[in-house]
Parts: sequence; structure tokens; C-alpha cells
Amino acid sequence: MNVDLIGSVAGTLSTIAFIPQVWRIWKTRSARDLSLPMYLIFTSGVALWFVYGLLLGAVPIVVCNGLTLLLAGTVMARGRCWR
Amino acid sequence: MNVDLIGSVAGTLSTIAFIPQVWRIWKTRSARDLSLPMYLIFTSGVALWFVYGLLLGAVPIVVCNGLTLLLAGTVMARGRCWR
Repeated sequence: MNVDLIGSVAGTLSTIAFIPQVWRIWKTRSARDLSLPMYLIFTSGVALWFVYGLLLGAVPIVVCNGLTLLLAGTVMARGRCWR
Repeated sequence: MNVDLIGSVAGTLSTIAFIPQVWRIWKTRSARDLSLPMYLIFTSGVALWFVYGLLLGAVPIVVCNGLTLLLAGTVMARGRCWR
């Protein structure tokens, strides 16, 4: 089995995973059970992955992390009642 | 600035981010605002990253994704009232 294929599927899944969370919070706006520190730390990490990809010129890293950044940012912007 | 350093900080942040979410759900058990499809897809993606790291012999990928797998798995196992 192709190692690059496994990496591509892995990157696609861990990126698109946030779409149902965006969909959920878009409808309810409730972020009570979500951890704000998690989203703050995670988004910082993804932003650094994005920079890392840019510095290496690695297109898949830039695209996956750019999308994840948008999705996680939407969760943070749309959520209410963070604790 | 060192590119590897940026990658290491990125990996550390996107892994430890799940600790406050585990902490939160450990106390409340409530997963009402969390998306189960998100956790299912995300965990599948992280499991594939883990396999990808093993096949490449890339220790940082194996360690980061192994830990994320444990943390995201704990969120799924501990959460109640998923919708």
C-alpha cells in the first residue's frame, strides 16, 4: 500500500472532521461543552503548521492547515457560552 | 528561525490542545455541543497519521498522533448525550 496515499487520506480526514462541528455550532451557537483553551491552543498549533508548510513549500500542509484554520476559527467566532 | 523548531512547536500545540477538552468532559461528561461525526472522522484521520508515521519511521509523527489518539479517544469514551 502506498505510504503517500495513507498520508493524504489522513490529512483529508483530520481536516474535514471539523465540518460537522462547524455545522453543529452554526445551528446551535452553543459552545458550553467545548473547551475554549482547546480551540485557542489548537488554532495556534494549526497556524504554526501553516507557516511550517509555507517555509517548506509543502502544498498539502499549507492547504490542509489553511482549511483547518478557517474551520476552527469559525467554531470560535460562532460559539457562545464558552466556559 | 529554525523550521524544525516551528514544526515541533506546532505538533506539541496541536497535540496538547486536547488536554483541556479531556479535562472539561471528564468533569461534566456532557458532549451535547460536541459533534460525534467530528470525533469519529478526526480519530480515524489521527489513526492513519499514526500508521503513516510508523511506516516512515518518523518518531515525532508517531508520538504526537499516538497521544492525540489517546486524548480524542478519552473524549469519546467519557462523553454522554452526543447528538
